[in-house]
Amino acid sequence: MPRFLAACMRQPVDTTPVWFMRQAGRSLPEYRALRERHGILDICRTPELAAEATLQPVRRLGVDAAILFSDIVVPLAPMGVDLEIVPGVGPVIQSPVRARRDVDAIKPLIPDEGVPYVLEAVRGLAATAGVPVIGFGGAPFTLASYLVEGGPSKNHSRTKAFMYAEPASWHRLMERLGESVLAYLRAQVAAGAAAVQLFDSWVGELSSEDFRSYVLPWVGRIFDGLADLDVPRIYFGVGTGELLADMAEAGPDVVGVDWRVPLDEAHRRTGPRVALQGNLDPALCLAPWEVVEPRATAILAGAPTTGHIFNLGHGVLPETDPGILRRLVELVHMRGAEDGRG
Amino acid sequence: MPRFLAACMRQPVDTTPVWFMRQAGRSLPEYRALRERHGILDICRTPELAAEATLQPVRRLGVDAAILFSDIVVPLAPMGVDLEIVPGVGPVIQSPVRARRDVDAIKPLIPDEGVPYVLEAVRGLAATAGVPVIGFGGAPFTLASYLVEGGPSKNHSRTKAFMYAEPASWHRLMERLGESVLAYLRAQVAAGAAAVQLFDSWVGELSSEDFRSYVLPWVGRIFDGLADLDVPRIYFGVGTGELLADMAEAGPDVVGVDWRVPLDEAHRRTGPRVALQGNLDPALCLAPWEVVEPRATAILAGAPTTGHIFNLGHGVLPETDPGILRRLVELVHMRGAEDGRG
Repeated sequence: MPRFLAACMRQPVDTTPVWFMRQAGRSLPEYRALRERHGILDICRTPELAAEATLQPVRRLGVDAAILFSDIVVPLAPMGVDLEIVPGVGPVIQSPVRARRDVDAIKPLIPDEGVPYVLEAVRGLAATAGVPVIGFGGAPFTLASYLVEGGPSKNHSRTKAFMYAEPASWHRLMERLGESVLAYLRAQVAAGAAAVQLFDSWVGELSSEDFRSYVLPWVGRIFDGLADLDVPRIYFGVGTGELLADMAEAGPDVVGVDWRVPLDEAHRRTGPRVALQGNLDPALCLAPWEVVEPRATAILAGAPTTGHIFNLGHGVLPETDPGILRRLVELVHMRGAEDGRG
Repeated sequence: MPRFLAACMRQPVDTTPVWFMRQAGRSLPEYRALRERHGILDICRTPELAAEATLQPVRRLGVDAAILFSDIVVPLAPMGVDLEIVPGVGPVIQSPVRARRDVDAIKPLIPDEGVPYVLEAVRGLAATAGVPVIGFGGAPFTLASYLVEGGPSKNHSRTKAFMYAEPASWHRLMERLGESVLAYLRAQVAAGAAAVQLFDSWVGELSSEDFRSYVLPWVGRIFDGLADLDVPRIYFGVGTGELLADMAEAGPDVVGVDWRVPLDEAHRRTGPRVALQGNLDPALCLAPWEVVEPRATAILAGAPTTGHIFNLGHGVLPETDPGILRRLVELVHMRGAEDGRG
């Protein structure tokens, strides 16, 4: 079994596997060249281009997994949401979700009809990538936050206000999004994805109490609904220190951890039944290698003996030198083996 | 002693004191009326206007403390930093700090010369507010983040990159900012401020390790430098769950806590030697009163028996109905007394 998949299932590995969130993207000159000719959504919607962007970091960095190049908002368009990705801003939604009728207007995603290009890209990648392909989708809370705010937000206050003021509509929204995300992830696995990651980037804005009331049941349904497929299920968010136990309770095989919580403490919070993915601060990759090396080494030393996938605590920053990422991969592979994780 | 000051010093009180970060500001119609005629920095720099903005929420809401209406960037201009506050964006710095020579170009603040209007506003308020006046300043990390980024930032990656890549310049920057902030807070106390709050809004972006290396010594110096003045010193940041013990170690009398960490857990992390301020999610104040009331009551029930100042976990959101804030003040005063904190 490839070491990435083995580590996700807390099996022994020859060395620690490593990949980077947003490894495909603006930090790579070959991606910037691609973007000179194509828009982001064009790349996401053209199987050959999405596959090319996905494979660029695999070739250059030697990572242990390929994550499908896409954006969490891609499945929203076929669900009837009018959106665009504005450079320097992010996803902008034409008509934000602010009332029950807006929730009811969201159509369920039928992956074969709505996102055939994504499935075709995954099929091609599964045959050619040489490493496991990670499928992915946005989690209901994070998708809802874009839908309700109308775009990126500093504090997600409109989303929370909607959640607090109209709980029935909120739960209906989470149900709709959750069902579509489940169908989306299942279809990616059927197309050949060897693992899936649910991105709940902004869920760390919530207290544990709110997470448990408004989010956990719906995320739990997604992980339950994937259980029979026998692929590792990863759950990731930022600023989730107080939610790690709740996130583990939702049923993933792997929990992503950001740089704020050391991995040994994260392991205490999640309990031993999940693997951990993380957790170097992406801003550290802007520093000279002499600064990066001891920090990465310390992460490896503090990680659980089995069940660690090295990653950043959030996505690669666009201004990152890919040479640093390449050296990180080499370091993790060398030190991970020395530490006897295998 | 006014109950706000008593609670800060963990003394018995008749009922729990309450104030709100950003209680003066856009949530109040009388403030919006003021803003129709004056820019933010004009208000900050005109003692009568700053005093008026400061007192508006005291009159309307019945809070137990008045926080000086100002902005953390106000003292930067007399330190030689060319800045403006752009509506909808925030502070924008003309020439960001990116190298040692930029650090060396920052002049020390001499409060009487650089910010006489602030001190005059505090003097007037101390005589007329009827409640303790809280002076305030930005903490070195958060000020540095504006200086280095050139404005508000999503992930403060440039700030961290500077910190990691040029530690000597970073520490020099923190020293310069720290000395000026200390002088600024001392001058406010001399003018009549009965307490001070150090705003380190963005410090929660750092891991504990980085906080201890790059920030704690300089914040500690500020609190040490205020010790002889015998006024409560409050230290506040957002997303600081993993830093609460470190923040308490810096030497404040009160640590501000956001909504992610329940107060009983926060109390375990800080230890019993500091009071706690917080921690209702400001987004909850956008919800109907039936949703707000049980959450506020639960905070009072979970707070330490002595040493709790009720507040939000971050500033009042502009779209907040001040009627909700008024009811919150009444609730805290009523329940705080029932719970026998006194």
